[in-house]
Formats: sequence, C-alpha cells, structure tokens
Amino acid sequence: MQIGIVGLGRMGANIARRLMRAGHRCVVWDRDPAAVAAVVADGATGAADMAALVGTLAAPRAVWVMLPHGEPTEQAIAALGDLLSPGDVAIDGGNTQWKDDVRRAAALGARGIDYLDIGTSGGVWGLERGYCLMIGGKPEPVARLAPIFDALAPGRGEIPATPRREGRAPNVEQGWLHCGGHGAGHLVKMVHNGIEYGMMQALAEGLDLLRAADSPDLPEDHRITVDVADVAEVWRRGSVITSWLLDLTATALAQDPALEKYAGRVGDSGEGRWTVQQAVETGVAAPVLTAALFARFATRDDARFGARALSAMRAGFGGHLEPKKG
Amino acid sequence: MQIGIVGLGRMGANIARRLMRAGHRCVVWDRDPAAVAAVVADGATGAADMAALVGTLAAPRAVWVMLPHGEPTEQAIAALGDLLSPGDVAIDGGNTQWKDDVRRAAALGARGIDYLDIGTSGGVWGLERGYCLMIGGKPEPVARLAPIFDALAPGRGEIPATPRREGRAPNVEQGWLHCGGHGAGHLVKMVHNGIEYGMMQALAEGLDLLRAADSPDLPEDHRITVDVADVAEVWRRGSVITSWLLDLTATALAQDPALEKYAGRVGDSGEGRWTVQQAVETGVAAPVLTAALFARFATRDDARFGARALSAMRAGFGGHLEPKKG
Amino acid sequence: MQIGIVGLGRMGANIARRLMRAGHRCVVWDRDPAAVAAVVADGATGAADMAALVGTLAAPRAVWVMLPHGEPTEQAIAALGDLLSPGDVAIDGGNTQWKDDVRRAAALGARGIDYLDIGTSGGVWGLERGYCLMIGGKPEPVARLAPIFDALAPGRGEIPATPRREGRAPNVEQGWLHCGGHGAGHLVKMVHNGIEYGMMQALAEGLDLLRAADSPDLPEDHRITVDVADVAEVWRRGSVITSWLLDLTATALAQDPALEKYAGRVGDSGEGRWTVQQAVETGVAAPVLTAALFARFATRDDARFGARALSAMRAGFGGHLEPKKG
Amino acid sequence: MQIGIVGLGRMGANIARRLMRAGHRCVVWDRDPAAVAAVVADGATGAADMAALVGTLAAPRAVWVMLPHGEPTEQAIAALGDLLSPGDVAIDGGNTQWKDDVRRAAALGARGIDYLDIGTSGGVWGLERGYCLMIGGKPEPVARLAPIFDALAPGRGEIPATPRREGRAPNVEQGWLHCGGHGAGHLVKMVHNGIEYGMMQALAEGLDLLRAADSPDLPEDHRITVDVADVAEVWRRGSVITSWLLDLTATALAQDPALEKYAGRVGDSGEGRWTVQQAVETGVAAPVLTAALFARFATRDDARFGARALSAMRAGFGGHLEPKKG
Repeated sequence: MQIGIVGLGRMGANIARRLMRAGHRCVVWDRDPAAVAAVVADGATGAADMAALVGTLAAPRAVWVMLPHGEPTEQAIAALGDLLSPGDVAIDGGNTQWKDDVRRAAALGARGIDYLDIGTSGGVWGLERGYCLMIGGKPEPVARLAPIFDALAPGRGEIPATPRREGRAPNVEQGWLHCGGHGAGHLVKMVHNGIEYGMMQALAEGLDLLRAADSPDLPEDHRITVDVADVAEVWRRGSVITSWLLDLTATALAQDPALEKYAGRVGDSGEGRWTVQQAVETGVAAPVLTAALFARFATRDDARFGARALSAMRAGFGGHLEPKKG
Repeated sequence: MQIGIVGLGRMGANIARRLMRAGHRCVVWDRDPAAVAAVVADGATGAADMAALVGTLAAPRAVWVMLPHGEPTEQAIAALGDLLSPGDVAIDGGNTQWKDDVRRAAALGARGIDYLDIGTSGGVWGLERGYCLMIGGKPEPVARLAPIFDALAPGRGEIPATPRREGRAPNVEQGWLHCGGHGAGHLVKMVHNGIEYGMMQALAEGLDLLRAADSPDLPEDHRITVDVADVAEVWRRGSVITSWLLDLTATALAQDPALEKYAGRVGDSGEGRWTVQQAVETGVAAPVLTAALFARFATRDDARFGARALSAMRAGFGGHLEPKKG
Repeated sequence: MQIGIVGLGRMGANIARRLMRAGHRCVVWDRDPAAVAAVVADGATGAADMAALVGTLAAPRAVWVMLPHGEPTEQAIAALGDLLSPGDVAIDGGNTQWKDDVRRAAALGARGIDYLDIGTSGGVWGLERGYCLMIGGKPEPVARLAPIFDALAPGRGEIPATPRREGRAPNVEQGWLHCGGHGAGHLVKMVHNGIEYGMMQALAEGLDLLRAADSPDLPEDHRITVDVADVAEVWRRGSVITSWLLDLTATALAQDPALEKYAGRVGDSGEGRWTVQQAVETGVAAPVLTAALFARFATRDDARFGARALSAMRAGFGGHLEPKKG
Repeated sequence: MQIGIVGLGRMGANIARRLMRAGHRCVVWDRDPAAVAAVVADGATGAADMAALVGTLAAPRAVWVMLPHGEPTEQAIAALGDLLSPGDVAIDGGNTQWKDDVRRAAALGARGIDYLDIGTSGGVWGLERGYCLMIGGKPEPVARLAPIFDALAPGRGEIPATPRREGRAPNVEQGWLHCGGHGAGHLVKMVHNGIEYGMMQALAEGLDLLRAADSPDLPEDHRITVDVADVAEVWRRGSVITSWLLDLTATALAQDPALEKYAGRVGDSGEGRWTVQQAVETGVAAPVLTAALFARFATRDDARFGARALSAMRAGFGGHLEPKKG
C-alpha cells in the first residue's frame, strides 16, 4: 500500500526502506532535503513539504510521523490535523508520553481523523531485524494498515513458538500488537524501555563486580581476575540470562575489552522517567526500574550538592574533612 | 571418557544423561537408591556408596559432585579428599560460595588432588538445551576434561557469532569457559545469578505496571487495559528486551494469564545474597541487584516489625492509626 | 490581628486555638457545624458559610484554608476567588502540590487577590509545640501577616542558636520562613515530607534488623536478643541519630514493645510521591527517598502480579513452584 | 574509680578527660608519646607501654581500648589477654564488627578475663555532650563499671522523659545501655550507624532537590529558587525532621551556603557495610540503608566500568555514542 512518512532520521528512513523492500510505496518528507534525497534514491517519492506530501497521497491517507518527541512531533501532528481529511489516519511512531496521545486522539477525532500511537523498538538494527510494533488506537485503522505492520515487524523468524497460543491473533507472534485504545501503544513501549533500563543496569552491575573482583581491598587469596569479554560470550549459550542486550555487550567487549572508548556518562530518554512516574501514580513499587534510572543520573553527576552535604555532616559530627579530588 | 557423578537430583541425573548421550561413561551414586536405578536404566553404572564409586573409576579419576550447597556438598568433597588419589580431580558443580572453593582447593591440593569449581547454568532445560559451564581451577584438569565440557555445553547452535572473537578460545562460543583460578567458576556463576535476579525483577516490575495501568486511582481517560500475555509475546520479536527470561514469561502467561497458580512468595538461593555481599566488600554500588534481592525478601514479609514501626511513628506525629488487615 | 479560617479538622482547629491564645481573633467555618461550635467555644467567631465568613472580616482580609488537598482545597480557593476583594489574601495551609499554587496564584492575581502557599508542619503536636511554617508568595502579604506567623511558629525555644546566622532574618530561627515566590512554601514542605519518609524508613529498617538479630537462620553463637524499646531510648541521648522521630519511636515502643497494635500497612500522602516526581523531573538521583516510598507501597501489597511473575519465571527455568501461603 | 585507657586519639583522649572531670583516675597509653603527654597534662597517669599500664592498675583492672578497628584493636586486645589476670576486664570501645567480639570474648573468657564491647557514639562533641554507650557482655563487669558509664553518658539533660518507662533501668535514660551478651554493644552501634547513613542521605537528597528546584530543565514558571541555609534553619523548629543531623547541616550551611569547601567524595566506615551484610544474612529488606551506602560508593566513582558498559549497550542498539567528559 501507500503511506506518507514525515521525518527521515535513522529510524524514519529505515522504516521507509523496509516498507519499500516489501513492495509498499512511500511518500516522504524531512526538513533536511538531503535526507529526502537519500530515501528517494532508494525508491521513495519525495515531497517539498507536508502539504505536498498529503496532497500526493490518495485517500484514505496514512501518515507516519517519526520525529523526536516533544515539540517536533507535537507540531507535525498539529499540522496534519489541518491537512488531513476525515477517514485519514495520523500515526506517531516516536517516543511520545502516552498521555499526550490521549489528548491528541481526542482533538483529531473531533475532526474525524484517526490517530495511532505506535511504539517502535529496534533501533539501528530494525532495517534488517525488523521492528517490534506496539500499537494504540481504534481497531479500524489498525486493521486497514495491517500490511504495513506485517512488513515492518520481524516476523516469526527462528524463534520457537510459545506453547498454548493457539487461537490468539497470529500477528502478535510476528512482532506487532494492537495493545489497546489511544495511548496503549506508547504506554507499552514506555514500560518496555523501563525494563530495558533495568536489564541494562543489571548487566552493568554484574560486569562491574567481575571487573572489581581482583580489588586490592580484598585479601590476596580472594582476588580473582576474570576476562569479562569471555564471560559475556560464554553466557550467550545455555545460561539463564541469554538476551539481546547480552549479545550487544559481548560484541562491545570483544572489540574493546576495557570499554575505553565509552565515556560512561549515560543519558536517558523520557521513557525511563515516565515509567517511574507511572509507578508513583499507580502505587506500584518499582525499585529496580527506578534504581536503574537514578544510576544513570549518578553517572552524570560530579560532586553534587547532596554529596557535599554528606561531607559537611561528617565533618560536623566526626571532624572528617573529605579530601577534594586530584 | 569416564566420570563419576555424586548426587542424582534433577541436575545431576540430567548431566549424567547428557554425557552418556555423547558417548561418555558415568559411574553414579546417590543416597536414594531409586535415583541411582533411574540413571542406571539409562545406561550408567551404579555404585553402592562413594567408596565403591571411586573404586570403580580408573585413575586419573574425575568425580562431579552435584548436591545442594552447604553441608551436603561440604561433606561429599571432604569424603572425596579421603577416597581420591594424587592426580585425581574433585569437581563441585553446585552453587557453592566461591570462598569455600578457595579453602577446599588448598586442602585437597595439599594431598595432590585437583579441584574444579563449576558454575552450571541451565536448570531443568539443560538436558536438551545444554549447560553453560563456568569453570575455576588449574589449567591441567580443565584441559583433560575438555571432552566432558564439550558434551555438556550447548554448542554454538544457531546463535550468531560475535564479531572480532577470532583467535580466542573456541570453547567459549560453545558455552564453556575456564574463568580463572580456584573460585573463579563459582564467582562468575554467582554474578550470573545476581544479574538473573535483576533481570527478572525488571520484567516483573514492568508487568506489574502494565497490569496496574487501568487502576481506578487514575483519571478515567488515563486508564489503559492491556493483555499482558500478548505484550510479553510481541516483545519476543525485534524488541530490545528479547531474552530467555522473557520467553519463559510469555510461556507462563499464555497458559495462565493472571498467573493465579503462583503464590508470589519468592525464595532466593545463596547466590543473590553473596552477590550483594561481594558488592559491599569491593565497594561497588549494585543498587539494582540489591533491590531485586530485597524485593524477594519483601514478598515473604507480612506486616514486619519495621513496617509497624512506620505506622507507630505516623500515629505519633499525625494521629493516623493504620487499619489492620481484613 | 483578625483572620478567617476555613476547615476545622485537627489542624485547622488547633491553628485557630493557637492564634487565639496569642490574642488574635479568628472567624471560622467548617461544613460540620459541630466543628465550628467546638472552636467557637474556645473563643472564635463562627460563620454560617464562606460568604458570611468573608463578610465578617474587615478588609484587607486574610483567609486561611486548611482542608484536605485536592478537590476540597481547590473548591475553597476557587470560591474565595469569587468572594474576596483586591488586596485580600487567600492562604492554602494544606498539603497542596506546589504546581497548583503557581496556577492558582496567577488566577487570583488577575483579580488583584494575593495568594500564599504555606507548608505547615507539626501534626497533632502543633498546638503545644508550634508549627514550622514554610511560606511561598509575594513579600507584602507575608510582611503584613508576620504577627500571625509569629504566633503559630514554635519560637526559638531552648534550641541552641546556629552560629554565624547574624544578620539573617530572625523569624527563621523562630520557625517560619518566607521561602520564595508562589509554590515555594509547598515545594519546601514537599521536600520536608520526602526527607521525613526517608528518615522514618531508616529508623524502621534499623529496628527491623535489631528485632531479627536473634533469627534462627543465624549460627547459634551469632544470635543476639535486644530490647528494642531500651535501644530506642538510649539513642535519644548523645547519639548521632537523636531526632524527634526517634523520640516518637521510643514513646511508642515504651508502651507497646512489640508494636502489636499497629497494622504495618503504611499509607502515604501525596508529598512523598511528588518528591519522587520532582527528582525525576530535575534529574536528581533520590534513591533513599524513593526506596522509602516504595517500601510503603510494598507494605500494602499482597502477592502482587509482579511477584507472581517472579514465581512463574523460577518455575520456568528451575522447576520451583513456590508454595502458596498458609 | 580507676581505669586504663589504650589509644589517645580524639575519642580516647576525650573519654579520659570526661572521666577525670567526673573524678575518676585514668592510666593512659598511646604509641605516640605526645598524645600521652597531652592527657597527662590534664591529670592522667601516663604509662610507658601496655605492660606498664596494666602494672599500674590495681586489680580487678579495667582497660578501655580505643583504637581504629581491625588490626590495631585486634592486637591490643590480644596483648591484654596476655597481660591481664582473671577477674580483670578488657573493653573494646571502638567500631569493631560484632562477630569479632563473640570470638574474642570466648578466647579471653577461657582465661577468666572478662570482655565488654562498647559502641560509643558522640564524635568530636562527646567531651561536652557526653557519649551514648551501647554495651555488650556479662552483667557483672557492666555493674561494676557503672560509675564509669554514668560519667561518660550524657545524662538525662533537658530531654523530656519518655512516658511509661517507669520501672525500667534508669541508666538507659542517662544514655548508657547494657544491650545484651557479647557482641550486642557493637551490633546496636552498627545498626545505629546504618540508620545514621540513611538519615544523612535522606537529608542530602532533600537538599539536592531544593538546590535543583530552579533547574533550567524546568518550564520557566516552575523554577523555584530557595535559600537552602534558611530552609535547614527553619526546619529546626517544629518540623517532623528536627534532629541533630539537621542541626549540623544548618550550621554548615550558615557558614558556607554552597558547601564549596566540601569535596563530596564521601567515605564510609565498616559499620554501614556490615549493616547491609546483616540485612542480607537475616533476610531483612533494608533498601534505604543500602541505598545510602551505595550513594556513598557512587560519590567516589568516576566513569566506572559498569557505566561504560551501559554506554556500550546504548551504542550497540541505538547508535548513541555518549560524549566523553570535558
């Protein structure tokens, strides 16, 4: 089928390419003409602006917005609200806070325009590996766009089937799911990313422990030196923690066993934070997901005020004055 | 080759079977004659006691002990110290605290007996899937027993090779690793289990959040109902959190979407605790691994003293008296 | 001076009483006539409704709202917006989310009405001990109402002066502070309560450890039985952790050493949650304040879905089926 | 009465002085002659070595060892084992792991020598404020040394009595407690320090939140600037979090509002670590005490291996390469 794509960064451009490989036709726009040209070179139809993109598509139209969350996405969806017609569907495939989807779907719905929020997982590997799609919105546009989702999702692959799923929607096993009403797609993606933070931090702490296992603070006969790259590799087969994140870790360690090229000041996107806020709002204890987020904050902090306050209290009662660095 | 196996619980019996399928010969003993008989029926040679087992093996002998950690393993290794001869090797394949390995290896070494500590991951699936083996000890006995490890490990399987591992020991990619000196095998297994706790808790918290996303505490237009079994399934393909633990979760949810048959009072083995102690001893912050352990403790606690102390303080300053349950 | 008080629960009624003891005149209203009658009996002027209360006060008026946060306070402030005149001041002395103060102050300011947000700490002890007041808003109404704050605050008391505060506003040492613009009062109160949660949980965990120090899981010569009530008492003098919360704990333990009358299902007010959200929004790691909040959540949870998911995963890889309770 | 004191650092010297002010006689030794001379100048009898110190005391002797924990204390107690006679008592007033007390008490007891383990809280303020004493050991030596403990403890002071303590040992309200058998004193002190870590971190996080409340990441109308020194001061009166640690914080902030002279790389003594280990060994969830310990670890860590592993994983799936510092 035909689809419009707005935003041709790494994710948007590869989504277009994967769709075209499956025989779909893409009309694309990005504010950077070079980005448009690159995807046009792979077979897409370029548009000069969003109005032209919408004008090029035949009704009922579907426009997939793949932009950074926050203002860029907000503005693109608002513009589509003015450009699209009743029966068309606007798709936000980015990393939007799901509450914004609820609000936008109501606004667009008042004009007869459908809205889908799609959490899209897969990163830079998605073009080859496929994208896991978590979709929120009404059933009709989801059903209509099933061929698009079939093309983007990874498919069943070599992954063994889960027993007793007979009778359930087969697309789930291909890697795309209609999660529920408006917001459900981004909610599920948000939680996915929260779990991702937790798993990453679990691996990172484990590697840290292995790396510190020969610490000179330990008694000599309790110091153990371990080749962390080999450990990550051996865990890939038969262990309980086999996972794609472990595969990536093993790859990074094989190339750079001390990980010296990495700064270790770890950023976070909105979704880790929103996950914690969801936990707080629903009264669910989420100590691991939160610890993982705070651990990232801590990698970016240098001698924070709070840490200095600890030093000040210690000096107050114990007369310790902690040495300044360096 | 020939090997003795002491302890024929689920793990020990399946290790014997997997070895025999690969053409090795096993001499086995367990204090339960029925357990011995079951493995003998599959081709093993049964022994009446440990002395008989040792007597049946040709030197240099290898005896794999697969017993619950603590006293049972301690006693079996001590008994082997008296029964084995210089050049033989005693193997602890269980879940021993690695510091005990250091101690035992020194004691056996004084008698000329080798000792290997092997962390064995794979659980009830190991017979078919193979066991990930993390081995500590001297190089010679490891080299001698390589055929045993080759048979037990999963092999390369369909798992894509990690780039740039050329020139590294190929057995690592088959799923067994000589991690280092005495204790290194169980240290690496300990950390593996610590990571396992963290990953499991990350998944559990995420599922909890999804399940609570339609909480009546939320504003009506922010309640979202999600089919958690379908979400777990869709994440298996193309998402960042694909993992064996997710596969197991999807399987459990497909069969029992509300997980009603599970009590939710979660036990812990020694390794999660030892991991936290290792973090404390080496000054490594491990907030996620620790939160995962404490979350298990909390599932087993009912109205602890500390919680009642919180209630008492609240009553003290605020006049709240928290209602008793039920 | 004269002040109106809306809401005569435990906090509002005692605030009125403390003000009247200092010679101020209070015009009071509550939707429960019995609550009004009780404070009138102590010298206040009762009003039949909010309009009557406002009508009774001479301009420029000050009306202190002391109601549960959320809707009750929101409605009362909105009503005051219609009843008050330019130059009057509406005060929210309750536990409001500070962002709501920013919004309300703008709405009232457009009508020429001042607004103060006051975090009021002191609980049931405030009548005798005084209230610690954290005030947000413009300087003029704060200055005008200084006599009210002087009366409510605890005063310097026997507490030793902090060195080097010469030249700073003396009211701070009496227990009231103009913290900053609109919202600053409730922000500071929010953080105060966040710290309170953390301190309470620190004490609770310590008591739990003492109580469990004779656990039968420990080797016999490592079991230690401690009289927790005596420990709390001895810490009140000369220790580093002397604090009012410790005083309250010692009082509770002296009366009920096993704390048997407390349920240990611990509630939380909004402020602990908002503190975590503030941490997430400003990228500040707050692991202790968050752990304290989640520990309260956990006291209210029984066999959560997430815990059952842990059980399900363990059953999946290890064949453990955790026993159900009881 | 007469007592020997070994170790004249800040704590030991002040303990001697406080005892002498109360009329007791101290025989003192330190490996640093200048330290001995300083206390002799205040009235103590100096000894040339431990043997001389023991020889100077009349039986039954009491010798208080006040040395850094670990080897120095271990050696001094061992030396006393050789020097003292049956009926004498050796006291460890330092910060020893309580399990070491159990071992030492057994060894000394075999020679008829008593042993007391005393947790001593008070820091640099103890000379004036008194020391909170937590004592483990047999009842007889505790009873015999009561005059010593009476002199060292703070006394009842101005602190209001806890209701319903009638009939309980009055010394508890003076600040010293016989906590239980060998090890009980240091166990209670260990937990005290664990709580101290938690309370300190709760305060530090709260101050951090206040300090970050005007973060440019926030929308402009949600940025609030707060004078943290004034906030700490106002909380000292009437708030729920009044505490000695808050007093110390207010003092530090009054002198240096940005706490610029503190490095914010916070050390930890053994007791915070042992508290976490106790929690792990007894199966008690202690998330706040542990988070407080790990927060200290994190202040000392710069771009740890684990943090770099997070960066590596992010680069692996998302193509992010985190910028290096500076």
